[in-house]
Amino acid sequence: MNSFGQSFRINIFGESHGASVGIGIDGCPAGLSISPEDFVVDIERRKGGMQKGTTPRKEDDIPIFKSGVFNGKTTGAPITILFENNNTRSGDYEKQRAVPRPGHADFVAGQKFGGYEDYRGGGHFSGRLTVCLVAAGVIAKKLLALQSIVVNATITEIGGETDTEKGLQKAIDAKDSVGGIVECRANGLPIGLGEPFFDSAESLLAHAVMAIPAVRGVEFGTGFAAAKMFGVEHNDAIEDKTGKTRTNHAGGIVGGISNGNELVFRIAIKPTSSTPKEQQTLNLESGEVESFSVKGRHDLCIALRVPVVLEAVTAFVLADLMIREQRIPRILQ
Amino acid sequence: MNSFGQSFRINIFGESHGASVGIGIDGCPAGLSISPEDFVVDIERRKGGMQKGTTPRKEDDIPIFKSGVFNGKTTGAPITILFENNNTRSGDYEKQRAVPRPGHADFVAGQKFGGYEDYRGGGHFSGRLTVCLVAAGVIAKKLLALQSIVVNATITEIGGETDTEKGLQKAIDAKDSVGGIVECRANGLPIGLGEPFFDSAESLLAHAVMAIPAVRGVEFGTGFAAAKMFGVEHNDAIEDKTGKTRTNHAGGIVGGISNGNELVFRIAIKPTSSTPKEQQTLNLESGEVESFSVKGRHDLCIALRVPVVLEAVTAFVLADLMIREQRIPRILQ
Amino acid sequence: MNSFGQSFRINIFGESHGASVGIGIDGCPAGLSISPEDFVVDIERRKGGMQKGTTPRKEDDIPIFKSGVFNGKTTGAPITILFENNNTRSGDYEKQRAVPRPGHADFVAGQKFGGYEDYRGGGHFSGRLTVCLVAAGVIAKKLLALQSIVVNATITEIGGETDTEKGLQKAIDAKDSVGGIVECRANGLPIGLGEPFFDSAESLLAHAVMAIPAVRGVEFGTGFAAAKMFGVEHNDAIEDKTGKTRTNHAGGIVGGISNGNELVFRIAIKPTSSTPKEQQTLNLESGEVESFSVKGRHDLCIALRVPVVLEAVTAFVLADLMIREQRIPRILQ
Amino acid sequence: MNSFGQSFRINIFGESHGASVGIGIDGCPAGLSISPEDFVVDIERRKGGMQKGTTPRKEDDIPIFKSGVFNGKTTGAPITILFENNNTRSGDYEKQRAVPRPGHADFVAGQKFGGYEDYRGGGHFSGRLTVCLVAAGVIAKKLLALQSIVVNATITEIGGETDTEKGLQKAIDAKDSVGGIVECRANGLPIGLGEPFFDSAESLLAHAVMAIPAVRGVEFGTGFAAAKMFGVEHNDAIEDKTGKTRTNHAGGIVGGISNGNELVFRIAIKPTSSTPKEQQTLNLESGEVESFSVKGRHDLCIALRVPVVLEAVTAFVLADLMIREQRIPRILQ
Repeated sequence: MNSFGQSFRINIFGESHGASVGIGIDGCPAGLSISPEDFVVDIERRKGGMQKGTTPRKEDDIPIFKSGVFNGKTTGAPITILFENNNTRSGDYEKQRAVPRPGHADFVAGQKFGGYEDYRGGGHFSGRLTVCLVAAGVIAKKLLALQSIVVNATITEIGGETDTEKGLQKAIDAKDSVGGIVECRANGLPIGLGEPFFDSAESLLAHAVMAIPAVRGVEFGTGFAAAKMFGVEHNDAIEDKTGKTRTNHAGGIVGGISNGNELVFRIAIKPTSSTPKEQQTLNLESGEVESFSVKGRHDLCIALRVPVVLEAVTAFVLADLMIREQRIPRILQ
Repeated sequence: MNSFGQSFRINIFGESHGASVGIGIDGCPAGLSISPEDFVVDIERRKGGMQKGTTPRKEDDIPIFKSGVFNGKTTGAPITILFENNNTRSGDYEKQRAVPRPGHADFVAGQKFGGYEDYRGGGHFSGRLTVCLVAAGVIAKKLLALQSIVVNATITEIGGETDTEKGLQKAIDAKDSVGGIVECRANGLPIGLGEPFFDSAESLLAHAVMAIPAVRGVEFGTGFAAAKMFGVEHNDAIEDKTGKTRTNHAGGIVGGISNGNELVFRIAIKPTSSTPKEQQTLNLESGEVESFSVKGRHDLCIALRVPVVLEAVTAFVLADLMIREQRIPRILQ
Repeated sequence: MNSFGQSFRINIFGESHGASVGIGIDGCPAGLSISPEDFVVDIERRKGGMQKGTTPRKEDDIPIFKSGVFNGKTTGAPITILFENNNTRSGDYEKQRAVPRPGHADFVAGQKFGGYEDYRGGGHFSGRLTVCLVAAGVIAKKLLALQSIVVNATITEIGGETDTEKGLQKAIDAKDSVGGIVECRANGLPIGLGEPFFDSAESLLAHAVMAIPAVRGVEFGTGFAAAKMFGVEHNDAIEDKTGKTRTNHAGGIVGGISNGNELVFRIAIKPTSSTPKEQQTLNLESGEVESFSVKGRHDLCIALRVPVVLEAVTAFVLADLMIREQRIPRILQ
Repeated sequence: MNSFGQSFRINIFGESHGASVGIGIDGCPAGLSISPEDFVVDIERRKGGMQKGTTPRKEDDIPIFKSGVFNGKTTGAPITILFENNNTRSGDYEKQRAVPRPGHADFVAGQKFGGYEDYRGGGHFSGRLTVCLVAAGVIAKKLLALQSIVVNATITEIGGETDTEKGLQKAIDAKDSVGGIVECRANGLPIGLGEPFFDSAESLLAHAVMAIPAVRGVEFGTGFAAAKMFGVEHNDAIEDKTGKTRTNHAGGIVGGISNGNELVFRIAIKPTSSTPKEQQTLNLESGEVESFSVKGRHDLCIALRVPVVLEAVTAFVLADLMIREQRIPRILQ
């Protein structure tokens, strides 16, 4: 289903070339100040057109509040935020339909929904929906900030290069798209977030981040490197009664529960499926494999847009856990 | 919470040194044949004492059916399976309590539950509970088998070595514990499992596998390697109308939905936290960091026990999706 | 929370005097024809201004589809329907705020949400939101109709009179509001809807109908009269292999599960809380109990508007159960 | 499904003549004292054999704690309580199978579960499972008591008589079973329990109580009588800032939210389906309607056993809402 969260809950809707995309946010504590300006920076961070490697498609992306905010504050009732789709060109999608793009959901969506899906621009599977996550993330980050919790995500690697400009240049030179790694850190977390057995902090975070389009993996703390380590090397020695550990190989989560140290995890982003390079795929009408190349605006490296989305879903999961754990009150002062 | 699944739902309970551990399974279709013999192989696979690197602790681990099975078949009512704890030694846990073991949940559990937790042998956080997952997995695999779906997990790496005996020997030589990588594959899946947006197949699988103790990361298809790839390299060309792709970098999931190819993903397992080596941790009573070493039976490499557990949770998630998608009927013939 | 349903799920949002009210519908099978005309009759049925006893407030109440419908058919992605609020007069709500109206949520909402709630016209607690339920009900009834299931609700009693015009006249004469009884019947149901233990058909229906504003009770079959009956009188003798019973005191549900006979249940609707009569309530500012009377447009008998709302939530619950039971496919032909 | 609750969650399992019946309780705050003695009174209240009109079947009904309690206190991990079935006579159920008992789930269970259900003594549909609810209710009532909330249910009517002995005598004289009304009251509730839209206090309570076997209706405050009342008569005037109202026709809930006054609601219980009187039903083998009469121990009036069960589910729902509303802490002192 298109909803997530227990005490704090989001549901996402919309299609790339439909009337709008949007998000409902239920369970938000009452009394949080919300203004349109709160959303500007994060929505800009997600937008294309501003840095090497992202698409020039410009969209206004102004959040329209349809419910749940009154006199500039959350009311405790469900918040609904819409983003209208103004800048779409649907003309030639009908034609493209017979040729499912590799790496995109075109083929599986057609099969799953019996051909009834809105196939224009990826429809409900479009990365366009992440603007809704960003909006929910702004609210979640404001809630966490009241408890002095800060979430921050950055790109640590593009195309295998920690010098991200270099990784990007490789893709530009190759006239291809490229993948990357995004790391997220959260500071100020209390001990005790996450619940045994299935609502471990890693489980909830992994669930949410794997829903972000193009994510292919997630690792906490030393992650996959832990598989090569010895126990005495990996274990983090506890140093004081606040739970501070000498090292942080665990990435701030032990036994599925936050241990009071910095939360650290990373996700792998695949290269943008739409690449300027010629590719092959099946033509469903002719039944033949044929060559084709994607035209129009596209990101060289989708990872560039991901940090703000990753911050958003991380903040959302943490805020939900903070409410469950009764560490964020239902009415804010 | 300790439950997971939508149409097919498990809830897990119990403590390492309590009366029992167990699992409830709700929503299982009626008419599935169940016999105690079905569980023998998988429970043996999980057990220690049989191969280099696992603990000699022997437990009977006989599943006791408390509900939901009648005349050798599932009834459609909730199934409850208990495993009694017979082989426990609780004597000296009280003393150890002041010294939370690094890498274990001891410290966070004490903080989260205010000191009321059953701290003996890790209590509810013990790996002992995975025997319950294995039991649920047996049932899930039987359901999938009726649809010709097969799930298989194997160790691909220990201590960085693909020759696992070599990796294990390194740990034995170092008198330490060591981590590993486990890979899971599922064949025979239809197109269409997984749902946008938050119930993507990766999201549900990642949620479930990150709940397995000691898992530090999960990656689908090429996973973290995708972050270094170009788009034309990573995209899997569709070759025929069944959705078969030339390569399978996606690991069988595109847009969060199974695409009819083999499901492939891997998880990283940290080294067993209990290592024979001397470690340091805080003594909560004295407030001093002190040296200690774990005594008694322990696995050198917990990864050795994980494949059957990974199969179990994977099969469970897939069976839930199959029921949701109406591909497994509510009454079996 | 503001969501309901398992495999078919709605979430409702909006305030009486906010920008809009709306509903999200998730899990709707793909391929259902949807046109604005489908909604006209039911939305008119709910509207005031057309019969003795309902308010003259006229609203356009045109459903605006924001997602999930493409080329006139549902896509399988979440459907979002908005109703703009055009006909509102908020001017004097600030003043009224100190004087919570008896029978309304004014006082409890203020306490629950710390004064942050949108208090204008009842805000999120307004009966206005039932237009969203009606819209979801239209879709649910279309789904059920494909399986030859028909849901029908009618007023059976107003002010204690089965001649409803007579009951209404009593209220008009008394210059007061009045309550009523609404009965709902569904025909064509298969045997087997509802699940033990907590998802009994009565539990799910009661949950949903008690969420309709002004409902004070629900009874199935002979309901409260059953409490006065003998067993041999109440039991319905089964007459043939289709499960047809001679009588239908059970109202079509036995053991929480539909038995293939007509579903019959009734709800009690309290008199409209806003009555033209003078009432007493606390003035929160002065701390004194004072007299006041409600001005402006109001229904004499809210029960008159309820049948179409009751049909809607009933159809929704039944459709959810039909999908769970795999009796409505995920893709319609 | 067989689970209920959000932050505090129960799942129920077992069959009348299976190995056991039991209940899992998840989300219970840590640190609540639990002793076997806590359960004695309520389990006795539910038991038959002690008053005119209930069955002489005696069962030990001793709660066996399988998880979640340590050193006499809840740990925060899931609690599992079993009741073994010792006193069962399954011998002749196979024969009875062809003749579904009117008023019982026999016929629908057979249809829903394809004949795989445990049909002995009603199987999973048996009233036997309510002993599990009673056990969960003991825990919920202890949690509420810490907040000075008291829940109390009593029989107010049997066979239409408020003098219950008289109603019972009618059934004894008629050699038949008879129905009744049970009323539940809760005192000490804060303002604010219940959530718009679908988690209204009435919705959650109605959901839970309609799951109790034999319940045919529920009404809050004046309930069905409200349908006959005028508005000025029904509205409860607020008298002071604590929300105290002059009358309590609303039964303590307005707008779906507790208003700080006494919670009052009633449920209708049908006559026991098993009556000593001769009845008619279909013989599934012969295809003929035939006469039969129930032999063995049975309650004349099942309503006599219901008060303690009603208290239990009411207390459970209220405790869940109290935890959600952060009014019961996750760790008790």
